[in-house]
Amino acid sequence: SLREFVDALMPARVAEFMEGLDAVESWRVLQVADPERRVEVFGYFEPEKQTALVHALVGAGDADAISGLVADLPADDRVDLLRDVDDHVVEELIPLLPPDDRRETLRLRGFPEGTAGSVMTTEMVCLPEHLSVAEALTEISKQAQEVETVYYTYVVDDDRRLLGLLSARQLVTHYLNPNQLISELMQRDVVTVLAMDDQEAVAEKVADYDFLAIPVVDENRRLLGIVTHDDIIDVFREEATEDALLAAGVAPLENGYLKTHWFTLAYSRGIWLGVMFFAALLTAYALLRYEEGFDKVWWLVLFIPLVISSGGNSGSQSATLVIRGLNDGEVRLEDWRRVLWRELAMGLFLGAGLAIVGYGSALLLTRQAPEPHLSPTSYEMVVVPVTILLVVVCGTLCGGALPLLFQKLGLDPALMSNPFVAGIIDIAGIVIYMTVATAMIAGM
Amino acid sequence: SLREFVDALMPARVAEFMEGLDAVESWRVLQVADPERRVEVFGYFEPEKQTALVHALVGAGDADAISGLVADLPADDRVDLLRDVDDHVVEELIPLLPPDDRRETLRLRGFPEGTAGSVMTTEMVCLPEHLSVAEALTEISKQAQEVETVYYTYVVDDDRRLLGLLSARQLVTHYLNPNQLISELMQRDVVTVLAMDDQEAVAEKVADYDFLAIPVVDENRRLLGIVTHDDIIDVFREEATEDALLAAGVAPLENGYLKTHWFTLAYSRGIWLGVMFFAALLTAYALLRYEEGFDKVWWLVLFIPLVISSGGNSGSQSATLVIRGLNDGEVRLEDWRRVLWRELAMGLFLGAGLAIVGYGSALLLTRQAPEPHLSPTSYEMVVVPVTILLVVVCGTLCGGALPLLFQKLGLDPALMSNPFVAGIIDIAGIVIYMTVATAMIAGM
Ligand SMILES: [Mg+2]
Ligand SMILES: [Mg+2]
Ligand SMILES: [Mg+2]
Ligand SMILES: [Mg+2]
Ligand SMILES: [Mg+2]
Ligand SMILES: [Mg+2]
Ligand SMILES: [Mg+2]
Ligand SMILES: [Mg+2]
Ligand SMILES: [Mg+2]
Ligand SMILES: [Mg+2]
Ligand SMILES: [Mg+2]
Ligand SMILES: [Mg+2]
Ligand SMILES: [Mg+2]
Repeated sequence: SLREFVDALMPARVAEFMEGLDAVESWRVLQVADPERRVEVFGYFEPEKQTALVHALVGAGDADAISGLVADLPADDRVDLLRDVDDHVVEELIPLLPPDDRRETLRLRGFPEGTAGSVMTTEMVCLPEHLSVAEALTEISKQAQEVETVYYTYVVDDDRRLLGLLSARQLVTHYLNPNQLISELMQRDVVTVLAMDDQEAVAEKVADYDFLAIPVVDENRRLLGIVTHDDIIDVFREEATEDALLAAGVAPLENGYLKTHWFTLAYSRGIWLGVMFFAALLTAYALLRYEEGFDKVWWLVLFIPLVISSGGNSGSQSATLVIRGLNDGEVRLEDWRRVLWRELAMGLFLGAGLAIVGYGSALLLTRQAPEPHLSPTSYEMVVVPVTILLVVVCGTLCGGALPLLFQKLGLDPALMSNPFVAGIIDIAGIVIYMTVATAMIAGM
Repeated sequence: SLREFVDALMPARVAEFMEGLDAVESWRVLQVADPERRVEVFGYFEPEKQTALVHALVGAGDADAISGLVADLPADDRVDLLRDVDDHVVEELIPLLPPDDRRETLRLRGFPEGTAGSVMTTEMVCLPEHLSVAEALTEISKQAQEVETVYYTYVVDDDRRLLGLLSARQLVTHYLNPNQLISELMQRDVVTVLAMDDQEAVAEKVADYDFLAIPVVDENRRLLGIVTHDDIIDVFREEATEDALLAAGVAPLENGYLKTHWFTLAYSRGIWLGVMFFAALLTAYALLRYEEGFDKVWWLVLFIPLVISSGGNSGSQSATLVIRGLNDGEVRLEDWRRVLWRELAMGLFLGAGLAIVGYGSALLLTRQAPEPHLSPTSYEMVVVPVTILLVVVCGTLCGGALPLLFQKLGLDPALMSNPFVAGIIDIAGIVIYMTVATAMIAGM
C-alpha cells in the first residue's frame, strides 16, 4: 500500500518519486506517512514545491495542518521556507507555531542572508560536563529524533557557554568504559564562528578542518546553534554560482536560471550590461579622436578587434586566476608583488608569442589588399605586433591587479573584475594602438 | 613542553602552528607526538609540505621512518600523496608498506583522476547482519581508531556485497535496546555509486541526499570503499575552480595559481589564447572584405568595438547562466526550447534597450565629427541601433545554445563556451554590421 511504500524507502527517494505530483496530491501522500517521516520527506522537496504546498493548504483554510509540519522542520529550513512564502501566509502561520518554535523562528529570521546565523540550526545535543559516557549516550539516544545531528555533542555550562565538544566517535570508542566522565574526554579547544560571520568564511573553516558541523556562538561564547555539513555544501555551491555570474556581469540571483522570473533576470543582466555599454561607448569617442589617423592609414582598422580581443582574453585569464586564488585562500593580499611580477612576465611571454604570429598573419593579410599599391610596408606593419605585445601586457597586469585592488578595498574580488578588465582594455587597446602607429608611421 | 602542546590542541591547529617550519623541523616536532596523532597532524599539512617532508626524509636515507607514517594515512590521502612525490621515491616507499596497504594503494592508484575510485577511502566499518546493537557498538568501538568514519556502518554478506546501511544515529537511538538485531534496523535501500563514476556526479548525489558518505561498489554491488563529506567538499571546490578557469579559457591546473610552475601556467593559458587569437584573426579578414564600405562611410569604424562588445557581453551572460543551470541540475537538455525562447526574448529586450541608448549616443558623438559636413544623417545612423539589436540577439542565442550543444555532444558545457561565444560574436558582429549598413546606406 501507499503507506508501506512511503515507509520503506529513504525520505529523499520518496520525495523524488513525488516530483510530478501537485500540491494537493503531495499533501494526500504526506498525510499517509507518520508525522516524523512526513517532515523528512517534505524537507527533501524543492523549495518551490514546499512553498506551493504551504500556499495551497493555507489558501484552503488548512493552516493548522501545515503549521504542525512547519513547526517540526529543522529551524534553519523553517526559516528558509518562511522567507519564500507570501507575507500574509507567514503572518497566519507564525501565531500557530508552539511558543518555543515561534520565538526561535523570529530570532533566526533576524540574521541577514549570507551570515552564519542565517544558515545555522538550533537543534543539537547540549549536555552538562558532569555526565558519564553511559549517561551521555542515554541522553543522546533520547534526543536523537529531535536533533539535527548526533555526531557532535556540545558540552555547555549553566549559562549555555560552550565548554567542549564530544564526537560520537569518542563516545563510541569509550562505549566499553561507561563510567568515564565526558569532561575528561571532550575536546576543549573548539573552533567556533560568530553569528554575524560571513557564511563563506564559515564554509572555508569547515572545509579546512574537515568538520561535520561548526558551532555558532555569541561574543560571550554562548552556544547559539550549529551549521551542518550539508548546509556548508550548499554554501559552496551558492558561492560558486554567485562568483560565476558576477564574473560574467550578472547580479546574483536568488533562484536558478529557469526559476527566476523573466523580469528579474532582465534586471540582473540589464543593470551591468548597461554599465559595460557605457564603458564600450568610450571606445567610440577614442576612435573619433584618432579618426584622421585611420583616414590616412586605412589598414589600421583591420586589426582593431584583434588587438582588443587579445588584451581582453589575456586579462580575463589573469583576473580569473587571481580571483580563484584569492577565493581558495592560496593567494593573499601580501602576495601582490609576486602576482604582478608573474603577470608582467606572463604578459611579455604570451604577448611576444601572439605578436610573432600576428605579424606573420598581418603581412599575409594585407597582401590581399584590394588595391595593391596601398599595401603597407613590412616596417609599417610592425605597429601590429608591438601593439599586441603592449596590450597583452596591459591586460595581464590589469587582470592581476584589479581583483587585488577590490579585495584591498573590502569589495568582493569576483565583483565585475572580468567586465571591468574588458572595458579598460577596450579603451586602452585603442589608445595604445594609435600611439604606437603615430610614433612609427611617417605622415600620421 | 612540546609534547603537551602537540597533544593538547586539535591536529588541524597543530598543523597550522607548524606552517612556518621546514621539512626537517616539522619532522622533529612530529616525532614527539604519538604515532596516531602524528598521522593526523601530517594529514592537515598542505600537499606541498607533505611532499617536501617525504622527499627530505627519503633523501636522508630515512625511508623507513616515513613509510610507517605513509602506511597509517587514510587510503585516499596516501594515494594523493604518492601521486605528488617523485617516481623514484614512490618506488622506494611502496615495498616498505605492509602487504595489505601496499595492495590497496596499488589498486586505488589504478582509478583515473576525477572518478569516484580516485577519491574514495577503504577504511570503513563493515559488519555482518546477524549482530545485535550491543555487538555492533562493541565492534565499532574496537575499529573506531582505524576507520575514516564511525557514523555509517555498512552491513555486508560474506562476499562483501552491500546489504544495508546503519547510521550511528540509529545505533545511538537504540542504545537502550541492546539486543535488537542490526538487520532489523538497517536501511536496505542504499544509494551507491560505481568506482568509475565521475566525482562530480558523486558529489551531486551526496549534496542532494545530504549524506555524510556514499558507498562505492562494483557491478556486483560489492563494497569497494566510501567517499566522505570532506572529500565531497573538496570536489565541489575543485570543480568550481575548474569551471571558472575553463570559462576564461585557461586549461585546468593541478595546483593553485602561485603554486603552479610558471611554464605550466604559460602553457595552460597560451594554448587557448592561441586558439582565441586565430578566431580573432578572422575579424581582420572580415574587415578586409568590407574595407571599401569603411572607406566610403568613415564613421562606421567608430562603432566596431561597441557593437562587438555588446554582443560579447550579453552572450557571455547567457552562456554563464546556462552553464550554471546545467551544473546545478536546474536546466536539463530537454529544456532547450525554453532556454532558447528565454534568450531570444531577453536578447530582443536588452538589445532594444541598448539600441535606444546607443542611437542617442551615436547621434551626439558624430556631431563632434572633425569635418561637420561629413556627419552622417540621423537616418544613416539607424544602422547602429539596428546592428546592436541584432548582435545582442545573436549573442544571447549563441550563449544559450552553445552550452546545451556541448552537453548534447557529451562535452563539458563549461568547456570554452564563453571564449567560443566571444569568438563567434566578434566575427558575426562585423558581418551583421556591414550587411545592415550596405542595406540601409545609399552608395555603399
Ligand atoms: Mg538552509
Ligand atoms: Mg537560511
Ligand atoms: Mg577539507
Ligand atoms: Mg540544515
Ligand atoms: Mg558571498
Ligand atoms: Mg564570493
Ligand atoms: Mg571582448
Ligand atoms: Mg583526496
Ligand atoms: Mg585522489
Ligand atoms: Mg543538500
Ligand atoms: Mg578522505
Ligand atoms: Mg570534472
Ligand atoms: Mg565541471
